[in-house]
Amino acid sequence: MEQVIENPESLKFEPPVCSHVLNLNKFLSPDHKDSALLILNQKITVECVFEKLWANYNLHVCADGGANQLYEHFHEEELRSKYVPDYIIGDLDSIRDEVLNFYLSHGVIVISQSWQYSTDFTKSLQLISLHFFKPEFRELLSSERFEQNYGIDDCHGIETLYTAERPNWSTRDIDMLVLNAIDGRFDQTVHSITQLYMTSRTDAYYKLCYLTSTDIIMLIPSGGTLIKYSKDFKQHCVKNCGLLPLGGPTVIKSTKGLKWDVCNWHTSIMGGKVSSSNRFVGESYCYFDVEDPLVLSIELTLSRLVEFI
Amino acid sequence: MEQVIENPESLKFEPPVCSHVLNLNKFLSPDHKDSALLILNQKITVECVFEKLWANYNLHVCADGGANQLYEHFHEEELRSKYVPDYIIGDLDSIRDEVLNFYLSHGVIVISQSWQYSTDFTKSLQLISLHFFKPEFRELLSSERFEQNYGIDDCHGIETLYTAERPNWSTRDIDMLVLNAIDGRFDQTVHSITQLYMTSRTDAYYKLCYLTSTDIIMLIPSGGTLIKYSKDFKQHCVKNCGLLPLGGPTVIKSTKGLKWDVCNWHTSIMGGKVSSSNRFVGESYCYFDVEDPLVLSIELTLSRLVEFI
Repeated sequence: MEQVIENPESLKFEPPVCSHVLNLNKFLSPDHKDSALLILNQKITVECVFEKLWANYNLHVCADGGANQLYEHFHEEELRSKYVPDYIIGDLDSIRDEVLNFYLSHGVIVISQSWQYSTDFTKSLQLISLHFFKPEFRELLSSERFEQNYGIDDCHGIETLYTAERPNWSTRDIDMLVLNAIDGRFDQTVHSITQLYMTSRTDAYYKLCYLTSTDIIMLIPSGGTLIKYSKDFKQHCVKNCGLLPLGGPTVIKSTKGLKWDVCNWHTSIMGGKVSSSNRFVGESYCYFDVEDPLVLSIELTLSRLVEFI
Repeated sequence: MEQVIENPESLKFEPPVCSHVLNLNKFLSPDHKDSALLILNQKITVECVFEKLWANYNLHVCADGGANQLYEHFHEEELRSKYVPDYIIGDLDSIRDEVLNFYLSHGVIVISQSWQYSTDFTKSLQLISLHFFKPEFRELLSSERFEQNYGIDDCHGIETLYTAERPNWSTRDIDMLVLNAIDGRFDQTVHSITQLYMTSRTDAYYKLCYLTSTDIIMLIPSGGTLIKYSKDFKQHCVKNCGLLPLGGPTVIKSTKGLKWDVCNWHTSIMGGKVSSSNRFVGESYCYFDVEDPLVLSIELTLSRLVEFI
């Protein structure tokens, strides 16, 4: 039976046994080498945590005009020279000459890919996969030059390489944070959401999440997910949340630890039934069991976040 | 057969006969009394067209903290006194005292509705419906006072009235523009999209659209829709567009006048197939025929828009 249960502001419960556990405190601090930060082409709006995030992720990539945003984020040459990405990739119709020359002179690998049936975001993910899972790819890049596009076909060489190599990889998890995926042009926001669903199917090794000036956004897979957090983190950083059936109508089988917990709840954007403006009241946990993958957005107080990541 | 056709940058064609025609030039200039502007609680980011939009719509409503945003949009008391809404409604947990007192002293009707199973956005739509379709409602308000919440139950009086009266109305179209529906907290953005689908079913008299600093966003109904525009408007204001199946997977039966036209195209966010970064190349028209309602986003150059609305 479909149910909504309104809970008190704090709820203590034994966490259900669950194979998919997500530690919210650690979520933005992978601190290991299999991690990447990708910057898309919108203004960087997470000023107060940007430098900390940069330090927490190993590989740094800008998608085309994302390089302009990184460049303009800093007003001093000295800082710009400190925060230099490993790669810039895209059709290069957005990056400004001044920015391109600056990063080339600082040793950044800039790959041109003019293919119009794939976005700069998708191209970046394929590049990052090649970087992590095909060591020869890095050797290729270091032996070639920007002027020859590193020997890569400049239409869709990266996609061709990725498609050819993908079946042979033994993968490992990559923690992947994307900035500026949401809140720009609305079709690009929806493309980013589409990318969450697509990547979870084709490249599930990516632990992909988006940070905006208000929210962290991720996909929770079908089945059970337990979200853990410290009381301190919850108190100071976590505010509203939404369980968002952006892939299509589905059923939230149960939740535990939300202000408004639900049970056998049919959720659908078309049908007008979506759990938004909800919040975590579980003292240390929140649990979801969903029939299909669902987008979870959690409002964060960015000004306090820096103390926890 | 599923098809994608890449078109040249300009395409001239006879428009198909179609009962649903949308004039993009006039879309933000209803200039008649059955029109309303609703302001939600995010910073107003459409500065260069705000005053023109205010003038183009007849009724002005702020949802709770939307009143703070309107107040803070102006730095001078004189301007603030010129742009005074007709109503403020919501649970009133966001509006600041200074703002509340300012608008009360300027004759604004401020209705408190504490009900937590409905958003301030939804409450606003119900209020606007009552305003337009139940003349006695306006009389009731004018004979009562803020201190008594105008005789309206302060939990969910508006919803109760709306639900009771809704079946008896003979409605007429209301042009409705909402500011700040998108680009705030992500669960609220998705709620706004949900509201588009829901309103099209329950209150189809609303011609609802959202304006952001980059896009105009609306729902196109199932079946054929012809979008008309002047060459000038297209050239100076219209950039990218997206056909976004946010209600769930569906089929775009055909389009005509896009850079990438499609035919029998199965589109799905979960499946990773969404037409984003597309654009209008039809000289004066663009046509869509869709199986289910779909969200259309059109990127607009706001700095030029003011010349056309």
